[in-house]
Amino acid sequence: MTRPDGSATTVREHAGVMTHNSYGKSRVRLTKVTRHKDRHEFKEILVDIQLEGDFDPCYIEGDNKLVVATDSMRNTIYVLAANHALEDIESFGKTVAEHFVKTYEQVRMCTVHLAEELWQRITVDGKPHTHAFVGASDEKHSAAAIATAELTKIESGIDGLRLVKTTDSEFWGFVRDKYTTLPEVKDRIFGTAASVHWQYQSDPLHYQRAYDDVRKAVLEVFATHHSLGVQHTIYEIGQVALERVPEISEITITMPNEHRIVFNLQPLGLENKNEVFVTTDEPFGLISATIKRQG
Amino acid sequence: MTRPDGSATTVREHAGVMTHNSYGKSRVRLTKVTRHKDRHEFKEILVDIQLEGDFDPCYIEGDNKLVVATDSMRNTIYVLAANHALEDIESFGKTVAEHFVKTYEQVRMCTVHLAEELWQRITVDGKPHTHAFVGASDEKHSAAAIATAELTKIESGIDGLRLVKTTDSEFWGFVRDKYTTLPEVKDRIFGTAASVHWQYQSDPLHYQRAYDDVRKAVLEVFATHHSLGVQHTIYEIGQVALERVPEISEITITMPNEHRIVFNLQPLGLENKNEVFVTTDEPFGLISATIKRQG
Amino acid sequence: MTRPDGSATTVREHAGVMTHNSYGKSRVRLTKVTRHKDRHEFKEILVDIQLEGDFDPCYIEGDNKLVVATDSMRNTIYVLAANHALEDIESFGKTVAEHFVKTYEQVRMCTVHLAEELWQRITVDGKPHTHAFVGASDEKHSAAAIATAELTKIESGIDGLRLVKTTDSEFWGFVRDKYTTLPEVKDRIFGTAASVHWQYQSDPLHYQRAYDDVRKAVLEVFATHHSLGVQHTIYEIGQVALERVPEISEITITMPNEHRIVFNLQPLGLENKNEVFVTTDEPFGLISATIKRQG
Amino acid sequence: MTRPDGSATTVREHAGVMTHNSYGKSRVRLTKVTRHKDRHEFKEILVDIQLEGDFDPCYIEGDNKLVVATDSMRNTIYVLAANHALEDIESFGKTVAEHFVKTYEQVRMCTVHLAEELWQRITVDGKPHTHAFVGASDEKHSAAAIATAELTKIESGIDGLRLVKTTDSEFWGFVRDKYTTLPEVKDRIFGTAASVHWQYQSDPLHYQRAYDDVRKAVLEVFATHHSLGVQHTIYEIGQVALERVPEISEITITMPNEHRIVFNLQPLGLENKNEVFVTTDEPFGLISATIKRQG
Repeated sequence: MTRPDGSATTVREHAGVMTHNSYGKSRVRLTKVTRHKDRHEFKEILVDIQLEGDFDPCYIEGDNKLVVATDSMRNTIYVLAANHALEDIESFGKTVAEHFVKTYEQVRMCTVHLAEELWQRITVDGKPHTHAFVGASDEKHSAAAIATAELTKIESGIDGLRLVKTTDSEFWGFVRDKYTTLPEVKDRIFGTAASVHWQYQSDPLHYQRAYDDVRKAVLEVFATHHSLGVQHTIYEIGQVALERVPEISEITITMPNEHRIVFNLQPLGLENKNEVFVTTDEPFGLISATIKRQG
Repeated sequence: MTRPDGSATTVREHAGVMTHNSYGKSRVRLTKVTRHKDRHEFKEILVDIQLEGDFDPCYIEGDNKLVVATDSMRNTIYVLAANHALEDIESFGKTVAEHFVKTYEQVRMCTVHLAEELWQRITVDGKPHTHAFVGASDEKHSAAAIATAELTKIESGIDGLRLVKTTDSEFWGFVRDKYTTLPEVKDRIFGTAASVHWQYQSDPLHYQRAYDDVRKAVLEVFATHHSLGVQHTIYEIGQVALERVPEISEITITMPNEHRIVFNLQPLGLENKNEVFVTTDEPFGLISATIKRQG
Repeated sequence: MTRPDGSATTVREHAGVMTHNSYGKSRVRLTKVTRHKDRHEFKEILVDIQLEGDFDPCYIEGDNKLVVATDSMRNTIYVLAANHALEDIESFGKTVAEHFVKTYEQVRMCTVHLAEELWQRITVDGKPHTHAFVGASDEKHSAAAIATAELTKIESGIDGLRLVKTTDSEFWGFVRDKYTTLPEVKDRIFGTAASVHWQYQSDPLHYQRAYDDVRKAVLEVFATHHSLGVQHTIYEIGQVALERVPEISEITITMPNEHRIVFNLQPLGLENKNEVFVTTDEPFGLISATIKRQG
Repeated sequence: MTRPDGSATTVREHAGVMTHNSYGKSRVRLTKVTRHKDRHEFKEILVDIQLEGDFDPCYIEGDNKLVVATDSMRNTIYVLAANHALEDIESFGKTVAEHFVKTYEQVRMCTVHLAEELWQRITVDGKPHTHAFVGASDEKHSAAAIATAELTKIESGIDGLRLVKTTDSEFWGFVRDKYTTLPEVKDRIFGTAASVHWQYQSDPLHYQRAYDDVRKAVLEVFATHHSLGVQHTIYEIGQVALERVPEISEITITMPNEHRIVFNLQPLGLENKNEVFVTTDEPFGLISATIKRQG
């Protein structure tokens, strides 16, 4: 075997055969300002791209002739952003993913993940300011676009939505055996940082609207549902999201159970009236379910 | 020399003399729920304690008889929290810091740092919910209380307040020499994550109100001030905060300059109309000033 | 429908049907000291467990009677650790995963992920100390065990192995089109933090030995292979690992390309002889391949 | 008042007076490769610079004419690195700090902080490789240089040195009162991530050697000292470091006490023979002392 410059490559029996490969660029960070007359729009997005296709030669022989450099992928993201309204990250992801599949024959599939920082306009004299913004949350609006020659699938998501309720949450009736020390509780704090991801059976009129509607459903169900367990709340959120946003085909909800542990004040001569808790990060329960729209 | 149990300690010439020491407990995390009839209040606080005083023997001889175990400090925080209304972290910090100075003769100074997670009530049917909350920001409300036998000093703060404005920010007229490649700009993005800390010359009626007023001043000045540099904005924020909150004696404002760099589209055959930027975390400018109330 | 305590559950048409669910405990952190006469062994492990099985009722109705509390999972990990030699995390993972499948009829599959902190003995007077250790690296030894009633699959891994070579790395001959600005290079820095995961076709005599052999292969190939691209090096590492450790059935290698960018000294009147670089975290290339043993 | 371009600045009574200010560039990341014939040297450094001096006008009036742009500071670091052997970070820090004080009259003080990533040569065929390296630890070698017109002070440090010992550590005889629940222990695990910083009374021949000697002292004392408390070990480390490295004038040692908590196996029907522990990150004790050379 020879390489493009004529030098010989190693010829040897290979122990293995390559069954999968992919490559791309991660953490491309983009700020886009759209300067309308009366106000500026401001978007901050993190983009990851992965390509799959006919890339075996660069692995096996170091022959890069079909390789789109990851630096060129980065350039492409900024070029496409310059020409895109960027009203929502879902449609931008679609544009990026389809670009790679259409432009390069060797690309069989392009997967784009996007995460948007949340900012809100600063209020001055009771009015939203035209060009100044304050960080709204460490929560992210995420999206994915997966393009092949045949079709592009879009996924939307909410990552790291921190939620807590101080009552209306029970947990009892679970398995009691020799590994069980947890007491049953009729009133506990329920704290989480929810991740919610969904796919579409048809394009919504506005992806941003669909996202807003799902987020509202998550908040309202979390607040008002009488929870018999994290699983129970997850299921209810999934059903309500499907009811409210008809374009969604299926939704996956994942919730860590970030425990607040009642601090034992008894050895210190006090009673804890379910008021003082140790906040913990780890260990945490982690609960997940996928709900698919009926037939 | 002997230790409490009668065993001998090493006697040798010491190369050095101890000129300072302190110890305490860090990252004590506390959740407090106050269960009013019509609504629940929910506070999440991170507390750090450090003590200074007559603690030489535990260092020099391993004699712990004056040592308050850091585990006991942790217990104390939960005990004090059970008996405290916790309307604001400043007054709780004061209670904790004074407790250690008053309870233990060997404690000359107690420093307490506190950081509060920001939560806001979930809105359901247009109304704030009675017991469900959503994470408001990764920004923190911080405070410090430093107590000695004579007095207790209180400091309040805002940490990690993310801000961005898309125009009304210039930077030019700076030193140009052989190390300079930065072009002058009359219109740039100004992005930061501000830290603001202040001390009091007299107790405000409500610490939470003072905090709210400073935060409002930061947001409004950031949005409306025509900035000729990060320094320029910092100074203006400091002056306005002093004007609006008369109890403040001095204020320190620190701002990273989180650069958004205009992406060079020219080699890619496009013009960048000041719309597409590379978002960066590092390196960043870091600018700080302290403004003290005039005589 | 009724719940265990006789109260009625909501009866309504459900918009969706649950197609998948799982739950478990994450970030259970375990330290195990084995106190031999002449030396102590010290292991620090992070364990995550996820269960799948007949758990629909807790989601749909809030009926928890088949739910093993995640707190009980945590207890179980410490109980099993007390009775396990813990010579390697793979065999401990197997014990944990099989425990849940064997103990609870409703558990169809148990997945256990483990990550081990790396510590090395402190050297005193040229000898490894019997009971004192220093942190060896932020790299982790990871493992996974996936058990069903029929079989248990074991995976081993290395996460975050930081590597850099200052020459013997080229990148050229890639696609040049209107999105390309990257110059071709015959001599660049190659820096990464490799993740390597592999599965077994037969149990190795010692998992720890297999891990050591793979790690040695990664280091040696990375150092000595003349790289024509990250893909090229990944492929060679995979082949050599398969050659050296016959029990491995397939191996997946993932490498970020953590760019060091030649700092342009020209505008500053100096030449950069390929010596001074800007170290960057983002964006980064991300390249991956799976190599499966032949026949 | 007018600005450089003739426009008027706001004239108003200022509520406050600026009592302190500083600014600079943070997280400048630098890779330096020194290409010797027989081997490459490889350094990775993070640099932070802060300047103090006559900078009031940029704050008060937005007049930047004395401002050295932080972008120019960044350029300067790379320029100075190109011309510096970079055998140790201390001498590079000195070069950088003195550059700013000497070059710009308005700079009264320049503080430079540096942190070096630790890498070690990969071993191939029993020999250290000429140009390939593996990450040695997440611990950092740090330094600071503080220059004024009169003198430059150098500080060296070790940050995040993770240490653990499984015995030879006691903690008892501390204050027992109504806030105490911690039992006395004669044999506990002592785990920490030490920070050690020291200053010099005279320049050592090699800063790197001084660093190596201090690090060795920390490891050896930690391993062999019979600890009656974290304070006790800290003091002994300080004394031994001063004894071994005569150029050091004073040393500060800070140790978190990262608790491993004996897991209570009793409710689960087992005895815990001091072998199975819960590893925790928070809360942690935090203990510090400064030891200054005698006379």
